[in-house]
Amino acid sequence: MGYSDLDWKAINTIRLLAVDATLKANSGHPGAPMGMAPVAHVLFNKFMTFNPKNPEYINRDRFVLSNGHGCMLHYALLHLFGYALSMDDLKHFRQVDSITPGHPEAHDTPGIEVTTGPLGQGFSNAVGLAIAQAHTAAVFNKPGYELVNNYTYTFFGDGCAMEGVASEAASTAGHLQLGNLIAIYDDNHISIDGDTKCAFTEDVEKRFEAYGWHVQHVKDGDHDLAGIEAAIQKAKEVKDKPSMIKLTTTIGFGSKLQGTGGVHGNPLKADDAAQVKQKFGFNPEESFVVPQEVYDMYHKHASEGAAAEQAWNDLFKKYSSEYPELAKDFSRRLTRALPEGWEKSLPLWKPTDAAVATRKTSEKVLESIHEAVPELLSGSADLTGSNNTRWKNAVDFQPPSLGIGDWSGRYLRYGVREHAMAAIMNGISAYGTLIPAGGTFLNFMSYAAGAVRLSSLSHQRVIYVATHDSIGLGEDGPTHQPIETLVHFRALPNMMVWRPADGNETSAAYYMALTSKSTPSILALTRQNLPQLENSTLENGIKGGYVAVEAENADITLVSTGSEVGICVETVKLLKDQHGLSARVVSMPCTEVFDAQPKDYQLKVIPDGIPALSVEVMSTLGWEKYSHEQFGLNRFGASGPYKDVYKKFEFTPEGIAKRAVATVDFYKGLKPRSPVNRAFQQLI
Amino acid sequence: MGYSDLDWKAINTIRLLAVDATLKANSGHPGAPMGMAPVAHVLFNKFMTFNPKNPEYINRDRFVLSNGHGCMLHYALLHLFGYALSMDDLKHFRQVDSITPGHPEAHDTPGIEVTTGPLGQGFSNAVGLAIAQAHTAAVFNKPGYELVNNYTYTFFGDGCAMEGVASEAASTAGHLQLGNLIAIYDDNHISIDGDTKCAFTEDVEKRFEAYGWHVQHVKDGDHDLAGIEAAIQKAKEVKDKPSMIKLTTTIGFGSKLQGTGGVHGNPLKADDAAQVKQKFGFNPEESFVVPQEVYDMYHKHASEGAAAEQAWNDLFKKYSSEYPELAKDFSRRLTRALPEGWEKSLPLWKPTDAAVATRKTSEKVLESIHEAVPELLSGSADLTGSNNTRWKNAVDFQPPSLGIGDWSGRYLRYGVREHAMAAIMNGISAYGTLIPAGGTFLNFMSYAAGAVRLSSLSHQRVIYVATHDSIGLGEDGPTHQPIETLVHFRALPNMMVWRPADGNETSAAYYMALTSKSTPSILALTRQNLPQLENSTLENGIKGGYVAVEAENADITLVSTGSEVGICVETVKLLKDQHGLSARVVSMPCTEVFDAQPKDYQLKVIPDGIPALSVEVMSTLGWEKYSHEQFGLNRFGASGPYKDVYKKFEFTPEGIAKRAVATVDFYKGLKPRSPVNRAFQQLI
Repeated sequence: MGYSDLDWKAINTIRLLAVDATLKANSGHPGAPMGMAPVAHVLFNKFMTFNPKNPEYINRDRFVLSNGHGCMLHYALLHLFGYALSMDDLKHFRQVDSITPGHPEAHDTPGIEVTTGPLGQGFSNAVGLAIAQAHTAAVFNKPGYELVNNYTYTFFGDGCAMEGVASEAASTAGHLQLGNLIAIYDDNHISIDGDTKCAFTEDVEKRFEAYGWHVQHVKDGDHDLAGIEAAIQKAKEVKDKPSMIKLTTTIGFGSKLQGTGGVHGNPLKADDAAQVKQKFGFNPEESFVVPQEVYDMYHKHASEGAAAEQAWNDLFKKYSSEYPELAKDFSRRLTRALPEGWEKSLPLWKPTDAAVATRKTSEKVLESIHEAVPELLSGSADLTGSNNTRWKNAVDFQPPSLGIGDWSGRYLRYGVREHAMAAIMNGISAYGTLIPAGGTFLNFMSYAAGAVRLSSLSHQRVIYVATHDSIGLGEDGPTHQPIETLVHFRALPNMMVWRPADGNETSAAYYMALTSKSTPSILALTRQNLPQLENSTLENGIKGGYVAVEAENADITLVSTGSEVGICVETVKLLKDQHGLSARVVSMPCTEVFDAQPKDYQLKVIPDGIPALSVEVMSTLGWEKYSHEQFGLNRFGASGPYKDVYKKFEFTPEGIAKRAVATVDFYKGLKPRSPVNRAFQQLI
Repeated sequence: MGYSDLDWKAINTIRLLAVDATLKANSGHPGAPMGMAPVAHVLFNKFMTFNPKNPEYINRDRFVLSNGHGCMLHYALLHLFGYALSMDDLKHFRQVDSITPGHPEAHDTPGIEVTTGPLGQGFSNAVGLAIAQAHTAAVFNKPGYELVNNYTYTFFGDGCAMEGVASEAASTAGHLQLGNLIAIYDDNHISIDGDTKCAFTEDVEKRFEAYGWHVQHVKDGDHDLAGIEAAIQKAKEVKDKPSMIKLTTTIGFGSKLQGTGGVHGNPLKADDAAQVKQKFGFNPEESFVVPQEVYDMYHKHASEGAAAEQAWNDLFKKYSSEYPELAKDFSRRLTRALPEGWEKSLPLWKPTDAAVATRKTSEKVLESIHEAVPELLSGSADLTGSNNTRWKNAVDFQPPSLGIGDWSGRYLRYGVREHAMAAIMNGISAYGTLIPAGGTFLNFMSYAAGAVRLSSLSHQRVIYVATHDSIGLGEDGPTHQPIETLVHFRALPNMMVWRPADGNETSAAYYMALTSKSTPSILALTRQNLPQLENSTLENGIKGGYVAVEAENADITLVSTGSEVGICVETVKLLKDQHGLSARVVSMPCTEVFDAQPKDYQLKVIPDGIPALSVEVMSTLGWEKYSHEQFGLNRFGASGPYKDVYKKFEFTPEGIAKRAVATVDFYKGLKPRSPVNRAFQQLI
């Protein structure tokens, strides 16, 4: 223990960097950094191991600022410790193209582990990081080789504590007995609406105890550095439970408005900033000041981190000679490259194979590849038997004491917690040694939307196995039948939405999902059986769209996905026999991947001169991009056996043919341009 | 107390109706109905007041089956008590166009209060129903006239208990001290993945105590009818806290598979069904059997309910003479019609008025109309000062004991709980006397998507005030800037998505939102100031789309929304001066409402013969429906002052003009048809 004036100088330096940066940006949140600077100083300096010169050092302690609006706290620390984040970067806080955006973004800023700001996400990511650590340790650590033993720390505020996603994640972490997870709750009694008394009067400590957490309370987070240190030390020693430390602090400590909502989301007034500087012994005329002895202190800790990494590298060298296979696997995972030849284990289907649901072809893929891809960690939000996400001999990821699995298990039971599942998957992916796949019904991807968005924004390779993907789920009815869901996620940048039509397209979807290192995927899969298509191959599938049925002098192109492709193929014959029309069929399992193909390929698939009709049994919005006319379902579905439901909404060869005929008539003599042709390119 | 064989015969009748209906449908969930029949029998017969002949009787006790998959329990009860739900309806369980769909749907089935099935929603709706009751009582009850004193009961299972939305709602209910809310937790230890031990080992009782609930445990929910009755009685007597009764039951009670996951989501096997019937003293050869004495028992209770309503009507008649104004207001609210002339209080703006953010014009609308529309209950998920949802003299809806509001307050502080806010709003709307409006950032509507979907499906008139609606929010950056959000909700059936361009369009949005009795609305509003437009009027706005700038012999139509309309208007001059092009501008604040206009009107707005270019600063998906080319943002945004961000992505007159020129060139000589023309109509 033992804290000196230098510690306080360092703490006040952090506070004032937050004051100065928000003042200069005329935007931002000084309150949380000013209140949490003491605990941040103690945590980073006394407990955390990391190497600012190599932010990717795998056994680093992870830190997640779940109350991401307080990011100036983290940016200041990254700067002081010597990460590649300069004083100039701090001066460009919240400016276009800076690496110091308004909320922390993992992909752009060295030392930021995950993207936070949307409340509750970071806390839940931290649970994922801790899960990945526990699993990686169980797989790779050997006696004398504790390769992976880092802790995950997270700060969270009242906002995160109120968010359901964090509640779900906290319950999960308690169940999983994650002793490597330490969460520090900034109990400052202030949220945007003012005193938390107006909406949040529950007993947070008791709630976390109910989840199975070890809970402590440090009553004076503004001054009691020794108490903070002791609590973190104690939390580290509790190995069979995650730890929560409630830390009572004063938001905006030092400001004239300290302890009020006035200092939460607005910069200090100039005179207030000046008086804070004076109070803290800094020159009120100066800004962005770091005393050299503060740099020295932090740089010393940084060099200890660099030394720790060097020691780790030495250990890993020895490990590599003793456990060469494991070491090779470990090293490979860190590059995010898959094992060579893994794709040979992808299952393939012949057109003569039986009709089968794509949730089952997905199961076959997982069954076939799980040995070849050891970093694949599957799971489900309590729909294992419906999502078909579990290979036969899978072991559950569970605390060994429960007797139903162990830490090396590769199947995670997320419970009925879709939002936390997605946020935890983001954390697992961010750790760097695993690829998480998690199942729920496509409709309930909407519950997880807040975290799914961050999968995309933070470039996480996560795979959402979204079964029961349409009215084809039948009896469960409109409450479970997605209508708006696919266009929602197709509109999300950096997300691949796959809706395979059969087995080979399912393999193609997994191929792309696993090999796209910084893009998440949603696999929309059927409950009902689908036939294996003639032209469906892995090679065609990975283009995102291809010609499933070609025709000479065609009158129309039917563009379809998933369960409707087979019906379109049936429609071709009906159109020929009953209407004398020649139709082509395009299967478009992933529009995002199709968009990335060369234009001449796209025009071969959706050619000029004939109209295209899209056929997908949900919202037509967005299909105008690939077709002239759209057949879909712009209303809620119905509860009933799925064939009856399809019939009710005319998703039959007859129903499709009727619309195809109308489309051909409508475009008679017009030779329409393919919708692939555009007047200008979109910004990327 | 005192329970006889007849009670058990009734309970077993319910169980067997669930067995028979799921067996006949070959689909559904018999387990929960079989396990919860005892508590349902006690609750409905001993405690609840309702009139099956008038399911809308306003002071009825509300019942919400949050574990909606167990809906055969509720359908059986509705049938037995004499609601308009016949034995034939039970036999058509889960069939197309039946009133007994796979999960309960409020809009279609008499006696179903809210639409449940997506887990956690019903529980949260119940919190909303209880809030509405407390508020309505505070406003209308008078000494000697307890017009409104019903309780809200909800059943929920492990799945609901795990969902974050229910956690948020439970914390809210505890804070609000809702003594009129009684939740019964079906502690059956089984979810779809099997024993809850695999994912859910927290202490639920302790957690609810932490939220501030009164908690009891009935250990033998299978047999202890007296214990159940005593617990509910006690819960009713606790007036200053919501009550949770943990009821330990055996899922699928009576089945050979009782207590296992095998009986959760699949019908019983035929032999199992037969042995259950035998065990319960029923003929194993017969199905859908109701002993007459069971009907008699339930019908007797139903007639007590009818008498209670009659007594209430008499009371209301007296009340009407003593409090004529209040009675008139009360009666009017039940028709869902607004007060006559209320629309005169809508504020209007002149083109010469100052530029102002639409979140501020929205505030002005609320300020102006809140007296004329007393059923409007506003609120925010902890963003009051940012959403501008609170009128100046608003009183908070709070338990009086906190000293910061009272039950008659019309401003609800939802806390940082977007999902629960939406689900609670659905419950408030379903009660029948209030119109809830609730604010958050547009981006965080995604957190609430699960409940927003049910606003639409269940026809609730709720208003989402979604501010900070684009990259125009500036510094908070990509984590807070919606891209996919508008098309997501535009694709949701029965949802109006409004993005007003100025003050008058904001008034138009509120006009439509308030007068559409069974359609929810999302109002996407800016953080930044916008000019008042020339042709923006209430009359134009309520058409969903109109000509903001007309031009003779135009070369192009710019179709835009919200903050981009003003920039398009500026672009007109630039196109004329620098490119010699004549451009029209269409403002399209609500595509769903525009879709409902006559086609000739639509063609006047987006005419044949010239290309249309859409301009909206987020995903272009869906805009192909209203334009030939699209300018938008199909990537994530950036953190910075908003004008810099707009410039970075070229949302300036210059950037729009560049694309307009490319569009005109691309369609030169082609005289394109308006996208309003379609080959066929969509199913509705």
